Amino acid sequence: MSDEKVGLTSVPGYRAAGVEAGVKEEGLDLMLLSSERGTVPAAGLFTSNHVKAAPVQISKKHLEDKQLGAIVANSGCANAFTGREGIRRARQTAQYVADALELKPEDVGLASTGLIGTQLPLDKIGEGIKKAKEELSNTWEAGTDAAKAIMTTDTVSKETATTLEAENGSTIKIGAAAKGAGMIHPDLHATMLAIIVTDANITPAGLRSALQKAADRSFNMLTIDRDTSTNDTVFALANGIAENEKITKKEPSKNFQEGLNRVLTDLAKMIAKDGEGAEHLIEIRVEGAETEEDAKKAARTVAGSNLVKAAIFGRDPNFGRIVAALGYSGAEFSPSRISISLIGEEKETPLVLKGEPLPGDSIDEAIKLLEEEEIRIYIDLDEGGESATSWGCDLTKEYVEINSQYFRS
Amino acid sequence: MSDEKVGLTSVPGYRAAGVEAGVKEEGLDLMLLSSERGTVPAAGLFTSNHVKAAPVQISKKHLEDKQLGAIVANSGCANAFTGREGIRRARQTAQYVADALELKPEDVGLASTGLIGTQLPLDKIGEGIKKAKEELSNTWEAGTDAAKAIMTTDTVSKETATTLEAENGSTIKIGAAAKGAGMIHPDLHATMLAIIVTDANITPAGLRSALQKAADRSFNMLTIDRDTSTNDTVFALANGIAENEKITKKEPSKNFQEGLNRVLTDLAKMIAKDGEGAEHLIEIRVEGAETEEDAKKAARTVAGSNLVKAAIFGRDPNFGRIVAALGYSGAEFSPSRISISLIGEEKETPLVLKGEPLPGDSIDEAIKLLEEEEIRIYIDLDEGGESATSWGCDLTKEYVEINSQYFRS
Repeated sequence: MSDEKVGLTSVPGYRAAGVEAGVKEEGLDLMLLSSERGTVPAAGLFTSNHVKAAPVQISKKHLEDKQLGAIVANSGCANAFTGREGIRRARQTAQYVADALELKPEDVGLASTGLIGTQLPLDKIGEGIKKAKEELSNTWEAGTDAAKAIMTTDTVSKETATTLEAENGSTIKIGAAAKGAGMIHPDLHATMLAIIVTDANITPAGLRSALQKAADRSFNMLTIDRDTSTNDTVFALANGIAENEKITKKEPSKNFQEGLNRVLTDLAKMIAKDGEGAEHLIEIRVEGAETEEDAKKAARTVAGSNLVKAAIFGRDPNFGRIVAALGYSGAEFSPSRISISLIGEEKETPLVLKGEPLPGDSIDEAIKLLEEEEIRIYIDLDEGGESATSWGCDLTKEYVEINSQYFRS
Repeated sequence: MSDEKVGLTSVPGYRAAGVEAGVKEEGLDLMLLSSERGTVPAAGLFTSNHVKAAPVQISKKHLEDKQLGAIVANSGCANAFTGREGIRRARQTAQYVADALELKPEDVGLASTGLIGTQLPLDKIGEGIKKAKEELSNTWEAGTDAAKAIMTTDTVSKETATTLEAENGSTIKIGAAAKGAGMIHPDLHATMLAIIVTDANITPAGLRSALQKAADRSFNMLTIDRDTSTNDTVFALANGIAENEKITKKEPSKNFQEGLNRVLTDLAKMIAKDGEGAEHLIEIRVEGAETEEDAKKAARTVAGSNLVKAAIFGRDPNFGRIVAALGYSGAEFSPSRISISLIGEEKETPLVLKGEPLPGDSIDEAIKLLEEEEIRIYIDLDEGGESATSWGCDLTKEYVEINSQYFRS
């Protein structure tokens, strides 16, 4: 993205803060986002996991009126599998924010990430919210602190932004922050933790629809470890400051949709690249599928295969594992028609052409390409005109190391 | 199992051999099994992967008449994704065996395991079959050599046997050999490579039905890495020497079914325990499910979760990851009703009781239990009376090491 200011505070009308509330042993662990216009149209997408964290349950309720005025999110504790007490603590968290920002608790969106099965330390959360309120600001640093406060095993914070022209000429901005790293295999209407703000003038239904479309081709095409979290949450807020002609579900804006797609895809790639222990970002592009569903299944299954992921970690252009993963993906195709290439920064190396594995020197070239940080695998099923892209990362010893440490989640 | 002689040669009427054919760089890599009575009732189960290896395609055809007289299997080359030439080579392999044993090619079952996307070296296979024919024997050593010849990344060969009384008093024997290790997540009618021989008097339909039932609760409840292979194959041969009253699909034998279940479950556990890089066998027992389907989904999803597997590698009793995996398994349950325990050799340590995480000293006990080689996790959904068991292994750095080496498959 070429915008100079990225993240949540790159959009007019939003202030953010990230503070140390003490939920984690050290570091920023509580973020607050405040809409200067009070409550504005909002939309949310939540985990499809049957075990929904308390903040997910409460946020869904708070979104029933399709508007929010603030979002509070913490790392260090997922407040998931915490029963009625967990619900009570999530409600109290919303109350603290409401008190601090003169909102109703129903105007507050909640998100938590961290260990499952422990209760949120309410006193620390309460103090943290007070502190965050004092630090709310629209500076770049405030936005970055907010993005940092939701990191768990992430090694870098994830922020992006874009500017677009609405069809009537108004300029619309979209800014976003997200966290990823592990337990990432968003399913259907689910995702990881991401917060998107825009100054677009858009109805709640229009925002919800655009968000779902953008998520379906970004977050929902992301897989780190095929484990779908209890806490996946995406919030989008739209304050209307851009004064573009109102975007609705019935009359959507192509430009806004494209901008939102860019922002979410950008975050998805950042999350894949920073997957736990990852050395490579893996992008799987499937073309020539008979249906879009086939293209998506094929791309995401290959990106999620432990064996493909381990092969890429080992710089092994093992197309057999790609073919095996395609075979159990559920997508329709004929093995004798598929082609597979590796695409590097500067050149493309075919591995399989119309069902025929290519000879050894193509493999040697492929091994060289696998030294690159971003690995693009291109698969042509030669069955039709549909396509999809999925993102993931390699499976490394470091992933196992990170996830075998006591009580990390 | 308490039988003194285990494996393929523990059953009257079968001879076996395992030889070095040179498909692999070194070691036994070709097994031959011959029925002394010529063709006998036989059944097979094959991978559900859309990309089916050539030997799978040919074996399905050869089983259309529901009988086989011999089985040949090799390691070192999967003969998968090899097009028409692969089919030709699989057919020629059957012809070699037919020539050696005076059978029709249609009486030969074929299986291959190893690298995907390379052609079978026919000259080596032909010489190997001649050599194996000379070495066919009913000694224990011959059976063990046969089991060793199908190993890939397996660290131990897998053989078992059982003896049972038929309802009319006849004694029936069942012997079996299998290979496992990686790319293991058998799906629906699929499994890894296993060969079962019995002297039972049973119709082909009766054998097929009993085999499917036994596989559904053993191989199909096994997961090493959620990658379903292109080559999964199970063969069962029944030569009738036991002269029990004929078992049919309509009049099945409870005792035979139980014996077959024992044999397949035994192999499944051996395969899980010897999963690539595994330090622990993990057994997930789910009880109290509303439907059997729910119990199976829940058990297999927990056993297959990378995060649960990495936690067990790290001796981390992270029940939150178990709950999260249950949540995305698709099984119906209420988080507030579930109980989770770790069951060790000598005692049981509860982690969650009716939705409530238990305090720290229970966690300390659990950490000790995780030092044991076989980890049993017991989950009570408290929704109904159905249950299921699944097997897997932990996710270790060694798994990544094994699977990141150049061109292993």
